Amino acid sequence: MASYNFERALSSMARERLEVSEIGEMIRLVVKHGAISFTAGEPSADLVPALQLKEAFGDVFDDPSLLGYAGSVLGYPGLREWIRGWMRDGGLLPDWVEASDIMITCGSQEGISLAGEALIDPGSYVLVESPTYMEALLSFRKQGAVCIGVPTDERGIVVESLEAILKEKNIRFLYSIPNFQNPSGNTASAERRMEVLDVLRRYDVPMLEDDPYHYLSYDADTPPTYIKLSGGDARVVYLGSFSKIVAPGVRCGWMVAPASLMSRISSLRVNACLDLPSFPQRGLLNYLSRLDVKGHIESLNSVYRRRRDALVSALDSHMSGLGFRHNRPGGGFFIWGNLDGVSDMTAFAHYAVVNEKIGVIPGSVFFAPGAADNTSIRLSFAKIDEARAEEGCLRLARAVKNYRK
Amino acid sequence: MASYNFERALSSMARERLEVSEIGEMIRLVVKHGAISFTAGEPSADLVPALQLKEAFGDVFDDPSLLGYAGSVLGYPGLREWIRGWMRDGGLLPDWVEASDIMITCGSQEGISLAGEALIDPGSYVLVESPTYMEALLSFRKQGAVCIGVPTDERGIVVESLEAILKEKNIRFLYSIPNFQNPSGNTASAERRMEVLDVLRRYDVPMLEDDPYHYLSYDADTPPTYIKLSGGDARVVYLGSFSKIVAPGVRCGWMVAPASLMSRISSLRVNACLDLPSFPQRGLLNYLSRLDVKGHIESLNSVYRRRRDALVSALDSHMSGLGFRHNRPGGGFFIWGNLDGVSDMTAFAHYAVVNEKIGVIPGSVFFAPGAADNTSIRLSFAKIDEARAEEGCLRLARAVKNYRK
Repeated sequence: MASYNFERALSSMARERLEVSEIGEMIRLVVKHGAISFTAGEPSADLVPALQLKEAFGDVFDDPSLLGYAGSVLGYPGLREWIRGWMRDGGLLPDWVEASDIMITCGSQEGISLAGEALIDPGSYVLVESPTYMEALLSFRKQGAVCIGVPTDERGIVVESLEAILKEKNIRFLYSIPNFQNPSGNTASAERRMEVLDVLRRYDVPMLEDDPYHYLSYDADTPPTYIKLSGGDARVVYLGSFSKIVAPGVRCGWMVAPASLMSRISSLRVNACLDLPSFPQRGLLNYLSRLDVKGHIESLNSVYRRRRDALVSALDSHMSGLGFRHNRPGGGFFIWGNLDGVSDMTAFAHYAVVNEKIGVIPGSVFFAPGAADNTSIRLSFAKIDEARAEEGCLRLARAVKNYRK
Repeated sequence: MASYNFERALSSMARERLEVSEIGEMIRLVVKHGAISFTAGEPSADLVPALQLKEAFGDVFDDPSLLGYAGSVLGYPGLREWIRGWMRDGGLLPDWVEASDIMITCGSQEGISLAGEALIDPGSYVLVESPTYMEALLSFRKQGAVCIGVPTDERGIVVESLEAILKEKNIRFLYSIPNFQNPSGNTASAERRMEVLDVLRRYDVPMLEDDPYHYLSYDADTPPTYIKLSGGDARVVYLGSFSKIVAPGVRCGWMVAPASLMSRISSLRVNACLDLPSFPQRGLLNYLSRLDVKGHIESLNSVYRRRRDALVSALDSHMSGLGFRHNRPGGGFFIWGNLDGVSDMTAFAHYAVVNEKIGVIPGSVFFAPGAADNTSIRLSFAKIDEARAEEGCLRLARAVKNYRK
């Protein structure tokens, strides 16, 4: 008996709009070849507070109501209150935000996905930065969006380019990662943010602000958030995350959105999974409540700052002589570079991991279709200490020399 | 400054395809009026093994890899292996199912949602039982499905009606809850299942089998699963859940699907939230591994059996004389009834909770559009002991008498 052919039964979403992640493929190759990895966009395992989380989770099962369905589809109220207080104290929120305007999400990825469902129709234009977070591209495309890339420089979105696109096309929203961007490492300046908001207001376009790296700032204060700058205008939906400052495995991010949008987002969530489990949110709240948050973040940053400096320095030593140009990000995990004379970085990245056991992500995966910069490359220092930075760059340099032969 | 109007920016999914749950509204009224509730589709809090879960979760943070991103988007491998072994031992799985054909889901609701995304295009016809689980209706409609109800009787789907619909319309899949159905309480007989599968094969239509109540059987062995009966034909996607036999708050269900479909489902999951947290799955595995599963289920069933008997008996005593006819389900949580002379059960349910402080769910919410039975009603005994069954039925009888005046 032949088995049923599900290929034939697939929706156009499942058949035409899903793409395989090239990052996943690179990570598989890194593992297979036992390579040093400049690929990882996740925190270093040694910086995850496993012991404190264990302690904080000790009493979550003492409240049996947390083992029922959640009382609120928006998530555990105490955690939402905590986030509101924390963000307000940091000057990140406009006055209108109450705890009921905050939803706990399964990482910021769920926020990206729900916002896409709420705001994208098949054929809708969505504006993304060039380059941008690849999984956001995949998620928007799944909803049928046509993603258009707006050029960026080291100070953020190029405002003239933004306006030129908005003049021509009906854009559903702008997706931006303003701080220590994945993948470019760049941060939009305060002045540039005001200019971007001004253009968005004139063309009446909303924004999805994705800010997972906000607190990982190594040199200076992080500029004000778009959602704060937007004030009562309230055209900015904000996404935050505990993945980088606590642990990705708690799968806990949050979305801030005005009530008119949040009511639809919460219905979409009920459709997707009824609600998220409450006890991890309660455990996370226990952890955060007992934590010197500022001190914790400073100690994370002192480690990541050293790792950034080590990788920048190793790149300067071993790669600059080979026509490699790179930036020095003020925070986050990622360094962005361009390598002269390599026209297909994907082919080079495969070559490097197989032959020299060094993993990097080709920059082309981070662009909307048709806009790719094929000489670009993303390097993560999140899990790379000084010795591995040095050895990794030596391998990368060898890969460049041998690949060019 | 006026704030941005997100209403105008909504996708047609968010604007046109989301419906408010009437069940949620009834539960709000129950809480507001301090009513006795026959509404709840969730396990009794006193039956949730909070202490054992606390113990089982004690060491999950000792493995820091569980705090990174998940190793597999399908979920924690050990838990998938455990589910496979358990279901195979129970004779519920066909031979082709490996652990890689199982995905852990955020409750079975996530399985319903992901299957809908994979198999529904806007305008697609989806066949559901009349009546059926309301949140599945909402989830399929969100994807743009036109849901068509197929009549059922106390032995399951009426096969002649099924065939008549399949003859006429191109159906994407049949959604069925074969055991102790929510809301009808009915169970499809083994013979009926074979007949349904035979029709599905002849018209080459797949099935989504939603089986959260499988183990809550009070009188007899549960008939074989559709996925097992389908064998190598592999046209059945199976959804299971720990919500009813462990706790809803662990948000842990599973999907069994052939590789050709699972590859798309897992891409849809990555788009939705990258992955679910691993540590709750590890904790659940610890709990299950140390558990006498059979004994645990027997002890749950002895409680629920008594509750069913108590509510059936109280209904016989106080409601049958008022023209109320109801069934006696062999398992699960729900009794289904019809009340003569009440033509708008939604209005009656609102009247009853406000005036007599007794909450019930009007049956009409469980039907595809145009097929509603407005005299029907769903009564849950999950959280109702004998005293509350008696008092609740007295109130319900008073409500009927006063409402008819």
